[in-house]
Amino acid sequence: MEVVFMNKIITISRQYGSGGRGIGKQLAKELGIPCYDYEIIERVAQESGFAKEFIEQNGEYASSAVWIGNSFVANGSPYGGMNVHDSLWVAQRAVIIKLAEEGPCVFVGRCADYILRDKQDVISAFIYADMDSRLDRLKTKYGQSAEATQRNLKDKDKRRAAYYRFYTDDEWGDVKNYDVCLNSGRIGDEACVQILKEIYNDHVSK
Amino acid sequence: MEVVFMNKIITISRQYGSGGRGIGKQLAKELGIPCYDYEIIERVAQESGFAKEFIEQNGEYASSAVWIGNSFVANGSPYGGMNVHDSLWVAQRAVIIKLAEEGPCVFVGRCADYILRDKQDVISAFIYADMDSRLDRLKTKYGQSAEATQRNLKDKDKRRAAYYRFYTDDEWGDVKNYDVCLNSGRIGDEACVQILKEIYNDHVSK
Repeated sequence: MEVVFMNKIITISRQYGSGGRGIGKQLAKELGIPCYDYEIIERVAQESGFAKEFIEQNGEYASSAVWIGNSFVANGSPYGGMNVHDSLWVAQRAVIIKLAEEGPCVFVGRCADYILRDKQDVISAFIYADMDSRLDRLKTKYGQSAEATQRNLKDKDKRRAAYYRFYTDDEWGDVKNYDVCLNSGRIGDEACVQILKEIYNDHVSK
Repeated sequence: MEVVFMNKIITISRQYGSGGRGIGKQLAKELGIPCYDYEIIERVAQESGFAKEFIEQNGEYASSAVWIGNSFVANGSPYGGMNVHDSLWVAQRAVIIKLAEEGPCVFVGRCADYILRDKQDVISAFIYADMDSRLDRLKTKYGQSAEATQRNLKDKDKRRAAYYRFYTDDEWGDVKNYDVCLNSGRIGDEACVQILKEIYNDHVSK
Protein backbone atom coordinates (compact mmCIF):
# COMPACT_ATOMS: atom_id res chain seq x y z
CA MET A 1 0.00 0.00 0.00
CA GLU A 2 1.37 3.37 -0.92
CA VAL A 3 1.02 6.10 1.67
CA VAL A 4 0.71 9.56 0.18
CA PHE A 5 0.06 12.79 2.04
CA MET A 6 1.56 16.22 2.21
CA ASN A 7 2.62 16.93 5.78
CA LYS A 8 6.29 17.26 6.60
CA ILE A 9 7.21 14.69 9.19
CA ILE A 10 10.33 13.69 11.11
CA THR A 11 10.71 10.17 12.45
CA ILE A 12 13.30 9.57 15.14
CA SER A 13 14.60 6.08 15.80
CA ARG A 14 16.91 5.98 18.77
CA GLN A 15 19.14 3.72 20.79
CA TYR A 16 18.02 3.37 24.38
CA GLY A 17 19.90 5.98 26.45
CA SER A 18 20.90 8.11 23.45
CA GLY A 19 18.57 10.96 24.39
CA GLY A 20 16.60 10.55 21.17
CA ARG A 21 13.26 11.06 22.89
CA GLY A 22 14.35 14.37 24.47
CA ILE A 23 15.82 15.49 21.14
CA GLY A 24 12.49 14.72 19.45
CA LYS A 25 10.51 16.63 22.09
CA GLN A 26 12.78 19.68 21.90
CA LEU A 27 12.80 19.62 18.10
CA ALA A 28 8.99 19.51 17.97
CA LYS A 29 8.78 22.34 20.51
CA GLU A 30 11.11 24.55 18.46
CA LEU A 31 9.26 23.72 15.24
CA GLY A 32 5.88 24.30 16.90
CA ILE A 33 4.55 20.88 15.89
CA PRO A 34 3.42 17.89 18.00
CA CYS A 35 5.78 15.13 19.07
CA TYR A 36 4.18 11.67 19.27
CA ASP A 37 5.72 9.18 21.64
CA TYR A 38 3.62 8.12 24.65
CA GLU A 39 0.71 9.83 22.86
CA ILE A 40 0.74 6.95 20.37
CA ILE A 41 0.13 4.54 23.23
CA GLU A 42 -2.92 6.53 24.36
CA ARG A 43 -4.37 6.64 20.86
CA VAL A 44 -3.75 2.94 20.21
CA ALA A 45 -5.39 2.12 23.56
CA GLN A 46 -8.44 4.23 22.68
CA GLU A 47 -8.83 2.82 19.21
CA SER A 48 -7.91 -0.83 19.74
CA GLY A 49 -8.92 -1.54 23.31
CA PHE A 50 -5.44 -2.88 24.17
CA ALA A 51 -4.27 -1.95 27.68
CA LYS A 52 -1.73 0.89 27.81
CA GLU A 53 0.72 -1.24 29.74
CA PHE A 54 0.56 -3.99 27.13
CA ILE A 55 1.13 -1.48 24.32
CA GLU A 56 4.02 0.12 26.16
CA GLN A 57 5.71 -3.24 26.75
CA ASN A 58 5.05 -4.74 23.33
CA GLY A 59 4.70 -1.86 20.87
CA GLU A 60 8.38 -1.66 19.99
CA TYR A 61 10.08 -4.43 21.92
CA ALA A 62 10.19 -8.08 20.96
CA SER A 63 9.45 -10.49 23.76
CA SER A 64 10.50 -13.86 22.43
CA ALA A 65 8.80 -16.05 25.06
CA VAL A 66 5.42 -14.40 24.52
CA TRP A 67 5.96 -14.30 20.79
CA ILE A 68 6.66 -17.97 20.35
CA GLY A 69 3.68 -18.81 22.54
CA ASN A 70 1.38 -16.59 20.53
CA SER A 71 2.41 -17.98 17.20
CA PHE A 72 0.39 -21.11 18.03
CA VAL A 73 -2.83 -19.20 18.66
CA ALA A 74 -5.59 -20.49 16.36
CA ASN A 75 -7.51 -18.36 13.89
CA GLY A 76 -10.28 -17.27 16.20
CA SER A 77 -9.60 -13.52 16.50
CA PRO A 78 -11.24 -10.78 14.40
CA TYR A 79 -7.83 -10.43 12.73
CA GLY A 80 -7.83 -13.98 11.39
CA GLY A 81 -4.47 -15.76 11.64
CA MET A 82 -2.69 -12.95 13.47
CA ASN A 83 -1.51 -13.28 17.04
CA VAL A 84 -1.97 -10.53 19.60
CA HIS A 85 1.38 -8.90 18.71
CA ASP A 86 0.48 -8.74 15.04
CA SER A 87 -2.85 -7.15 15.98
CA LEU A 88 -1.00 -4.54 18.05
CA TRP A 89 1.30 -3.86 15.07
CA VAL A 90 -1.73 -3.34 12.80
CA ALA A 91 -3.46 -1.04 15.31
CA GLN A 92 -0.28 0.96 15.97
CA ARG A 93 0.46 1.30 12.27
CA ALA A 94 -3.05 2.64 11.62
CA VAL A 95 -2.67 5.24 14.39
CA ILE A 96 0.73 6.40 13.07
CA ILE A 97 -0.66 6.83 9.53
CA LYS A 98 -3.69 8.70 10.90
CA LEU A 99 -1.56 11.04 13.01
CA ALA A 100 0.72 11.68 10.01
CA GLU A 101 -2.33 12.69 7.99
CA GLU A 102 -3.43 15.17 10.66
CA GLY A 103 -0.45 17.51 10.21
CA PRO A 104 3.31 18.00 10.43
CA CYS A 105 4.78 16.23 13.45
CA VAL A 106 7.65 14.32 15.01
CA PHE A 107 7.39 10.58 15.74
CA VAL A 108 9.70 8.91 18.25
CA GLY A 109 10.28 5.17 17.76
CA ARG A 110 7.65 2.53 16.94
CA CYS A 111 8.99 1.85 13.42
CA ALA A 112 7.40 5.07 12.15
CA ASP A 113 10.33 5.43 9.73
CA TYR A 114 9.34 2.14 8.11
CA ILE A 115 5.59 2.69 8.29
CA LEU A 116 5.87 6.08 6.55
CA ARG A 117 8.77 5.17 4.23
CA ASP A 118 6.86 5.61 0.97
CA LYS A 119 6.03 9.17 1.79
CA GLN A 120 8.52 11.56 0.19
CA ASP A 121 8.14 14.25 2.79
CA VAL A 122 9.39 12.22 5.72
CA ILE A 123 12.84 12.88 7.15
CA SER A 124 14.05 9.82 9.02
CA ALA A 125 16.70 10.23 11.69
CA PHE A 126 18.61 7.74 13.82
CA ILE A 127 20.06 8.94 17.13
CA TYR A 128 22.76 6.84 18.74
CA ALA A 129 25.71 7.16 21.09
CA ASP A 130 28.65 5.18 22.42
CA MET A 131 28.03 2.82 25.32
CA ASP A 132 29.75 4.99 27.95
CA SER A 133 27.72 8.08 27.25
CA ARG A 134 24.48 6.06 27.18
CA LEU A 135 25.35 4.47 30.54
CA ASP A 136 26.13 7.89 32.01
CA ARG A 137 22.82 9.28 30.83
CA LEU A 138 20.82 6.35 32.20
CA LYS A 139 22.62 6.29 35.53
CA THR A 140 21.90 9.98 36.00
CA LYS A 141 18.29 9.59 34.87
CA TYR A 142 17.27 6.43 36.69
CA GLY A 143 19.90 6.18 39.40
CA GLN A 144 20.47 2.48 38.65
CA SER A 145 23.71 0.68 39.43
CA ALA A 146 26.21 0.54 36.56
CA GLU A 147 25.67 -3.20 36.19
CA ALA A 148 21.87 -3.02 36.13
CA THR A 149 22.00 -0.14 33.68
CA GLN A 150 24.28 -1.99 31.28
CA ARG A 151 22.10 -5.12 31.40
CA ASN A 152 18.94 -3.08 30.88
CA LEU A 153 20.49 -1.19 27.98
CA LYS A 154 21.68 -4.28 26.13
CA ASP A 155 18.31 -5.97 26.65
CA LYS A 156 16.41 -2.95 25.30
CA ASP A 157 18.71 -2.68 22.25
CA LYS A 158 18.30 -6.34 21.41
CA ARG A 159 14.53 -6.34 21.78
CA ARG A 160 14.06 -3.17 19.74
CA ALA A 161 16.26 -4.55 16.95
CA ALA A 162 14.37 -7.87 16.99
CA TYR A 163 10.99 -6.11 16.86
CA TYR A 164 12.10 -3.94 13.93
CA ARG A 165 13.57 -6.93 12.07
CA PHE A 166 10.42 -9.01 12.56
CA TYR A 167 7.93 -6.42 11.32
CA THR A 168 10.00 -4.59 8.70
CA ASP A 169 12.30 -7.38 7.47
CA ASP A 170 15.09 -4.81 7.65
CA GLU A 171 17.87 -3.82 10.03
CA TRP A 172 17.32 -1.25 12.77
CA GLY A 173 20.19 1.25 12.84
CA ASP A 174 21.37 0.48 9.29
CA VAL A 175 22.21 3.83 7.65
CA LYS A 176 20.35 2.95 4.46
CA ASN A 177 17.03 3.28 6.32
CA TYR A 178 17.72 6.86 7.43
CA ASP A 179 18.36 10.30 5.94
CA VAL A 180 20.58 11.36 8.82
CA CYS A 181 22.26 9.53 11.73
CA LEU A 182 23.66 11.54 14.63
CA ASN A 183 25.89 10.48 17.50
CA SER A 184 24.39 12.50 20.36
CA GLY A 185 27.21 11.46 22.70
CA ARG A 186 29.75 13.11 20.42
CA ILE A 187 28.02 16.15 19.00
CA GLY A 188 25.56 16.87 21.82
CA ASP A 189 21.76 16.91 22.09
CA GLU A 190 21.41 20.59 21.31
CA ALA A 191 23.43 20.25 18.10
CA CYS A 192 21.27 17.28 17.08
CA VAL A 193 18.13 19.40 17.56
CA GLN A 194 19.58 22.25 15.51
CA ILE A 195 20.76 20.00 12.66
CA LEU A 196 17.36 18.27 12.40
CA LYS A 197 15.61 21.63 12.55
CA GLU A 198 17.68 22.93 9.65
CA ILE A 199 17.09 19.81 7.58
CA TYR A 200 13.37 20.13 8.31
CA ASN A 201 13.21 23.82 7.47
CA ASP A 202 15.55 24.12 4.56
CA HIS A 203 16.90 21.00 3.05
CA VAL A 204 14.07 18.60 2.36
CA SER A 205 11.10 19.87 0.42
CA LYS A 206 10.23 17.10 -1.96
CA MET B 1 49.62 3.37 20.09
CA GLU B 2 47.72 6.42 21.18
CA VAL B 3 47.64 9.29 18.71
CA VAL B 4 47.42 12.68 20.38
CA PHE B 5 47.54 16.06 18.68
CA MET B 6 45.55 19.24 18.72
CA ASN B 7 44.35 19.98 15.21
CA LYS B 8 40.69 19.77 14.41
CA ILE B 9 40.14 17.24 11.67
CA ILE B 10 37.21 15.87 9.68
CA THR B 11 37.38 12.42 8.14
CA ILE B 12 34.91 11.57 5.40
CA SER B 13 34.17 7.95 4.55
CA ARG B 14 31.87 7.66 1.59
CA GLN B 15 30.03 5.21 -0.57
CA TYR B 16 31.16 5.24 -4.18
CA GLY B 17 28.90 7.62 -6.10
CA SER B 18 27.58 9.40 -2.99
CA GLY B 19 29.44 12.64 -3.76
CA GLY B 20 31.48 12.35 -0.56
CA ARG B 21 34.68 13.48 -2.24
CA GLY B 22 33.07 16.65 -3.64
CA ILE B 23 31.45 17.35 -0.26
CA GLY B 24 34.87 17.02 1.41
CA LYS B 25 36.51 19.35 -1.11
CA GLN B 26 33.80 21.99 -0.76
CA LEU B 27 33.82 21.73 3.03
CA ALA B 28 37.59 22.21 3.17
CA LYS B 29 37.34 25.17 0.80
CA GLU B 30 34.71 26.87 2.95
CA LEU B 31 36.68 26.17 6.13
CA GLY B 32 39.92 27.36 4.52
CA ILE B 33 41.78 24.15 5.34
CA PRO B 34 43.34 21.49 3.06
CA CYS B 35 41.45 18.43 1.83
CA TYR B 36 43.55 15.30 1.44
CA ASP B 37 42.43 12.75 -1.06
CA TYR B 38 44.65 12.21 -4.12
CA GLU B 39 47.28 14.23 -2.22
CA ILE B 40 47.70 11.25 0.10
CA ILE B 41 48.68 9.12 -2.88
CA GLU B 42 51.36 11.62 -3.89
CA ARG B 43 52.79 11.76 -0.36
CA VAL B 44 52.75 8.00 0.06
CA ALA B 45 54.51 7.63 -3.32
CA GLN B 46 57.19 10.14 -2.30
CA GLU B 47 57.80 8.61 1.10
CA SER B 48 57.46 4.90 0.35
CA GLY B 49 58.58 4.54 -3.25
CA PHE B 50 55.34 2.74 -4.20
CA ALA B 51 54.03 3.66 -7.67
CA LYS B 52 51.08 6.08 -7.64
CA GLU B 53 48.99 3.71 -9.73
CA PHE B 54 49.59 0.86 -7.26
CA ILE B 55 48.64 3.09 -4.32
CA GLU B 56 45.52 4.32 -6.08
CA GLN B 57 44.38 0.78 -6.87
CA ASN B 58 45.28 -0.79 -3.54
CA GLY B 59 45.17 1.97 -0.91
CA GLU B 60 41.50 1.55 -0.05
CA TYR B 61 40.27 -1.35 -2.16
CA ALA B 62 40.71 -5.02 -1.40
CA SER B 63 41.84 -7.14 -4.32
CA SER B 64 41.36 -10.69 -3.15
CA ALA B 65 43.37 -12.47 -5.88
CA VAL B 66 46.47 -10.34 -5.26
CA TRP B 67 45.92 -10.49 -1.52
CA ILE B 68 45.78 -14.23 -1.24
CA GLY B 69 48.87 -14.51 -3.47
CA ASN B 70 50.80 -12.08 -1.33
CA SER B 71 49.99 -13.76 1.93
CA PHE B 72 52.46 -16.51 0.98
CA VAL B 73 55.39 -14.12 0.45
CA ALA B 74 58.31 -15.05 2.74
CA ASN B 75 59.83 -12.75 5.31
CA GLY B 76 62.43 -11.11 3.12
CA SER B 77 61.15 -7.52 2.98
CA PRO B 78 62.33 -4.66 5.22
CA TYR B 79 58.88 -4.95 6.88
CA GLY B 80 59.46 -8.54 8.03
CA GLY B 81 56.44 -10.82 7.61
CA MET B 82 54.24 -8.22 5.89
CA ASN B 83 53.15 -8.52 2.30
CA VAL B 84 53.15 -5.60 -0.10
CA HIS B 85 49.59 -4.58 0.85
CA ASP B 86 50.44 -4.47 4.53
CA SER B 87 53.48 -2.33 3.70
CA LEU B 88 51.25 0.05 1.78
CA TRP B 89 48.87 0.20 4.77
CA VAL B 90 51.77 1.07 7.09
CA ALA B 91 53.12 3.74 4.72
CA GLN B 92 49.66 5.24 4.14
CA ARG B 93 48.89 5.26 7.86
CA ALA B 94 52.16 7.09 8.60
CA VAL B 95 51.36 9.75 5.98
CA ILE B 96 47.83 10.29 7.36
CA ILE B 97 49.14 10.74 10.90
CA LYS B 98 51.84 13.12 9.67
CA LEU B 99 49.35 15.23 7.68
CA ALA B 100 47.02 15.33 10.69
CA GLU B 101 49.89 16.70 12.78
CA GLU B 102 50.57 19.45 10.25
CA GLY B 103 47.27 21.27 10.81
CA PRO B 104 43.48 21.18 10.62
CA CYS B 105 42.29 19.37 7.50
CA VAL B 106 39.72 17.12 5.83
CA PHE B 107 40.58 13.51 4.88
CA VAL B 108 38.55 11.67 2.28
CA GLY B 109 38.57 7.85 2.54
CA ARG B 110 41.57 5.61 3.22
CA CYS B 111 40.38 4.52 6.70
CA ALA B 112 41.45 7.89 8.16
CA ASP B 113 38.50 7.65 10.58
CA TYR B 114 40.01 4.46 12.02
CA ILE B 115 43.64 5.60 11.90
CA LEU B 116 42.82 8.81 13.82
CA ARG B 117 40.12 7.33 16.06
CA ASP B 118 41.97 7.87 19.35
CA LYS B 119 42.23 11.57 18.72
CA GLN B 120 39.43 13.45 20.47
CA ASP B 121 39.34 16.30 18.02
CA VAL B 122 38.40 14.26 14.98
CA ILE B 123 34.89 14.45 13.58
CA SER B 124 34.16 11.35 11.53
CA ALA B 125 31.45 11.49 8.88
CA PHE B 126 29.95 8.85 6.60
CA ILE B 127 28.31 10.01 3.36
CA TYR B 128 25.97 7.59 1.64
CA ALA B 129 22.99 7.58 -0.73
CA ASP B 130 20.41 5.24 -2.16
CA MET B 131 21.37 3.16 -5.20
CA ASP B 132 19.34 5.19 -7.71
CA SER B 133 20.86 8.51 -6.82
CA ARG B 134 24.37 7.02 -6.86
CA LEU B 135 23.74 5.51 -10.29
CA ASP B 136 22.42 8.84 -11.57
CA ARG B 137 25.49 10.67 -10.31
CA LEU B 138 27.91 8.18 -11.82
CA LYS B 139 26.13 8.01 -15.16
CA THR B 140 26.27 11.79 -15.42
CA LYS B 141 29.90 11.91 -14.29
CA TYR B 142 31.41 9.05 -16.29
CA GLY B 143 28.83 8.55 -19.03
CA GLN B 144 28.85 4.77 -18.48
CA SER B 145 25.94 2.53 -19.38
CA ALA B 146 23.49 1.84 -16.54
CA GLU B 147 24.60 -1.80 -16.37
CA ALA B 148 28.34 -1.04 -16.30
CA THR B 149 27.77 1.65 -13.68
CA GLN B 150 25.81 -0.66 -11.40
CA ARG B 151 28.45 -3.41 -11.69
CA ASN B 152 31.25 -0.93 -11.04
CA LEU B 153 29.42 0.54 -8.05
CA LYS B 154 28.76 -2.80 -6.39
CA ASP B 155 32.35 -3.91 -6.97
CA LYS B 156 33.75 -0.70 -5.45
CA ASP B 157 31.45 -0.97 -2.41
CA LYS B 158 32.45 -4.56 -1.77
CA ARG B 159 36.17 -3.94 -2.14
CA ARG B 160 36.12 -0.85 0.08
CA ALA B 161 34.19 -2.72 2.78
CA ALA B 162 36.59 -5.69 2.56
CA TYR B 163 39.64 -3.44 2.81
CA TYR B 164 38.21 -1.63 5.85
CA ARG B 165 37.24 -4.90 7.53
CA PHE B 166 40.67 -6.45 6.93
CA TYR B 167 42.73 -3.58 8.33
CA THR B 168 40.41 -2.24 11.03
CA ASP B 169 38.58 -5.42 12.09
CA ASP B 170 35.43 -3.33 12.06
CA GLU B 171 32.51 -2.64 9.71
CA TRP B 172 32.65 0.14 7.13
CA GLY B 173 29.42 2.16 7.20
CA ASP B 174 28.39 1.00 10.69
CA VAL B 175 27.03 4.07 12.52
CA LYS B 176 29.02 3.33 15.65
CA ASN B 177 32.24 4.28 13.84
CA TYR B 178 30.99 7.76 12.94
CA ASP B 179 29.83 10.96 14.61
CA VAL B 180 27.46 11.81 11.80
CA CYS B 181 26.08 9.92 8.77
CA LEU B 182 24.36 11.84 5.99
CA ASN B 183 22.31 10.61 3.06
CA SER B 184 23.47 13.01 0.33
CA GLY B 185 20.84 11.67 -2.09
CA ARG B 186 18.08 12.77 0.27
CA ILE B 187 19.32 15.96 1.88
CA GLY B 188 21.61 17.21 -0.89
CA ASP B 189 25.37 17.87 -1.15
CA GLU B 190 25.13 21.50 -0.16
CA ALA B 191 23.21 20.67 3.03
CA CYS B 192 25.83 18.02 3.89
CA VAL B 193 28.58 20.63 3.55
CA GLN B 194 26.72 23.11 5.75
CA ILE B 195 25.92 20.54 8.47
CA LEU B 196 29.54 19.34 8.63
CA LYS B 197 30.75 22.94 8.68
CA GLU B 198 28.52 23.74 11.65
CA ILE B 199 29.60 20.64 13.51
CA TYR B 200 33.22 21.56 12.85
CA ASN B 201 32.80 25.20 13.88
CA ASP B 202 30.45 24.97 16.80
CA HIS B 203 29.63 21.60 18.13
CA VAL B 204 32.79 19.63 18.68
CA SER B 205 35.51 21.25 20.74
CA LYS B 206 36.83 18.54 22.97
